[in-house]
Amino acid sequence: MNEASVTLKNVEEAKARLTGLVHLTPLESSHTVSRISEREVFLKLENLQRTGSFKIRGASNCIMTLSPEQKKRGIIAASAGNHAQGVALGGTMAGIRSTVVMPVAAPLAKVQATKDYGANVVLHGRNFDESLAKAMEIQQETGAYFVHPYDDPMVIAGQGTVGLEILEQCPDIENIVVPAGGGGLLSGIATAVKNKAPHVKVYGVQSEKAPAIYLSKKQGHWVSHPSGKTIADGCAVGVPGKLTWSLIDHYVDDMLLVNEEDIAAAMLLLLERGKLVMEGAGAMPVAAALQHLVPTPGKTALVVSGGNIDVNTVSRIIETGLMRTGRRVKLETRMADRPGELVKFISHLEKMQANILSISHERVDRSLPLGETIVEVVLETKNAAHVNEIDEELRRAGYKIEIK
Amino acid sequence: MNEASVTLKNVEEAKARLTGLVHLTPLESSHTVSRISEREVFLKLENLQRTGSFKIRGASNCIMTLSPEQKKRGIIAASAGNHAQGVALGGTMAGIRSTVVMPVAAPLAKVQATKDYGANVVLHGRNFDESLAKAMEIQQETGAYFVHPYDDPMVIAGQGTVGLEILEQCPDIENIVVPAGGGGLLSGIATAVKNKAPHVKVYGVQSEKAPAIYLSKKQGHWVSHPSGKTIADGCAVGVPGKLTWSLIDHYVDDMLLVNEEDIAAAMLLLLERGKLVMEGAGAMPVAAALQHLVPTPGKTALVVSGGNIDVNTVSRIIETGLMRTGRRVKLETRMADRPGELVKFISHLEKMQANILSISHERVDRSLPLGETIVEVVLETKNAAHVNEIDEELRRAGYKIEIK
Repeated sequence: MNEASVTLKNVEEAKARLTGLVHLTPLESSHTVSRISEREVFLKLENLQRTGSFKIRGASNCIMTLSPEQKKRGIIAASAGNHAQGVALGGTMAGIRSTVVMPVAAPLAKVQATKDYGANVVLHGRNFDESLAKAMEIQQETGAYFVHPYDDPMVIAGQGTVGLEILEQCPDIENIVVPAGGGGLLSGIATAVKNKAPHVKVYGVQSEKAPAIYLSKKQGHWVSHPSGKTIADGCAVGVPGKLTWSLIDHYVDDMLLVNEEDIAAAMLLLLERGKLVMEGAGAMPVAAALQHLVPTPGKTALVVSGGNIDVNTVSRIIETGLMRTGRRVKLETRMADRPGELVKFISHLEKMQANILSISHERVDRSLPLGETIVEVVLETKNAAHVNEIDEELRRAGYKIEIK
Repeated sequence: MNEASVTLKNVEEAKARLTGLVHLTPLESSHTVSRISEREVFLKLENLQRTGSFKIRGASNCIMTLSPEQKKRGIIAASAGNHAQGVALGGTMAGIRSTVVMPVAAPLAKVQATKDYGANVVLHGRNFDESLAKAMEIQQETGAYFVHPYDDPMVIAGQGTVGLEILEQCPDIENIVVPAGGGGLLSGIATAVKNKAPHVKVYGVQSEKAPAIYLSKKQGHWVSHPSGKTIADGCAVGVPGKLTWSLIDHYVDDMLLVNEEDIAAAMLLLLERGKLVMEGAGAMPVAAALQHLVPTPGKTALVVSGGNIDVNTVSRIIETGLMRTGRRVKLETRMADRPGELVKFISHLEKMQANILSISHERVDRSLPLGETIVEVVLETKNAAHVNEIDEELRRAGYKIEIK
């Protein structure tokens, strides 16, 4: 490694600095994830961190190490997400003026939260890059300190405190699995852990839709890779940091890759069984464990990096998850358009103990012969086997069924 | 108090017995709840407990104190909810055969979880009372020990361990607020806390729809009161325990009452800001704090008793919450049924930055003059003020708007 600009000492100093300002988040054992992944699993719950993600650690540490002159000129950042809230609260706790440029289309809940934490929010640009350009412009004008979301030694050192906490909370931990986007959290944790307890394996996880660091690791050198749209939007970074990459290259044992379906399934499992809300990025290590991707055995800490997810997305994940696990099904059939036919159809459903959630009845359709009607029902079902039983029952009764 | 059948010593013994079997759940500070309730709030997260609720504590403690003869004959319980899972896992951990009678209509997820934890599940009865009768019948036949969901000294002592943990986790706590249904958790915590730290105030909370213990406390003697349908279904108990009541009468400082809307709002707030899934019963103390109902000042622990809520209910709470906070609105208007009218209408919505989630266009309605059409749209909006602005814009443009 050429770059030695973040050390264990930096992380230890960050930890002392942050004590009392940020939560020492719980490291909770999870029986459900342990059972399915066939390993002893602990969840590091940074979704319960202040501002709902680990970002407050790096932002605060960076802000607190500024010189008095820098502090006077304030801080500036660009973000559509967790970094915005981290910088806002970090600034407020340090008594420093903060400005955060957010895209015009940023979710109102995040804009409001950033304002509530005390930042001056500037809405500018159609995407992150345009917000970033605006932030650099303001930086030039005001001389404010630009708090990078990941590629800053003090930001990295702050995120690394998560690793020190895990080692304290579970001294015999053997693996730590960490989400990666720009690489700040992963490089910080790896730097701390590999210097303090070199036998502990540290793995990074990325989504197939945003695999820049994964690709860099596989190719053995830094590469950028355009990020697609991913449910792990907090990790949708195409350009890894140069500093974060050098630390990851040196310290991280391997990178793992998960797909979007598995991330969503992990989110639903943790919501339903773990009683925890996690954002897509935060669920990636859980997805990796559930898919048996962690290469070495032993006690494993999964870093749930954050929980800032729009509640509408929570709803959608639930709906999709119910469909996929056979607990909800939408099916369509045709029947003669005369009185009594619908009752007959529904009585089959009742016999099968399928609970009708909605029903629609369509008479106008280009493909529909006169005198026929299309009926679409949404049913609450028990599981995939139950869906098959219903399907068979209806087919036996002569209905042509299309499961949608 | 006439009854002295649960003592601090019982609870302390339970704590020793349960160590390593049940989670020492986190006591997490919550900035969001603290800010709104204007007091320093800590959440005791029994939703992260094994089986998703505190019930495992009482069930396990009860089971472990049985005589070898009793253990040989197994245990039996009736439950539609958390107690079922507690008894099942408690039995399995102690190596004892367990039978749980559940109503036929019990949610499949709960039945499956109870089976997964190792119980022999008997589905019987249309409601809890019928399941209970069946359980008593099986008890008579088999001689199995009946594990009462709340009115049993060893069950109460087990639940009381939550109180001891809170005192250890935050020695200067000043108030503890606890959900109450049958009263097992409340009486156990009160017994432990009032004997160990008598200056700490202990309050119980009930829903307006199931206020039996509240009414008992206000009237100064045990009364039963039929329970209505409540979102806090884990506390929908009409008949408080006789033993739990005697302890509550003696130890609990006061009972508080919350309504259904406030419970749902607390659930949504904690889901959205706290990243935690809690069931209705578990959210009652949070609702009480948010409504400023806790009568004495100071550091306050809110016992989040469980998180076992159907994910469909989570979806519904989100939908309802979004409507109520002005982040989703359904509105209806009429327009001439000719090309171009719909585009004109939608362009107003776009101008107001309202995101259209669904739109329906209805031409057939008894009240509809020929040549007019009814349009119903569901919009994603920013807040109540935004909804008003949209309403005004549309009215200015000549539309008659009905917000539904």
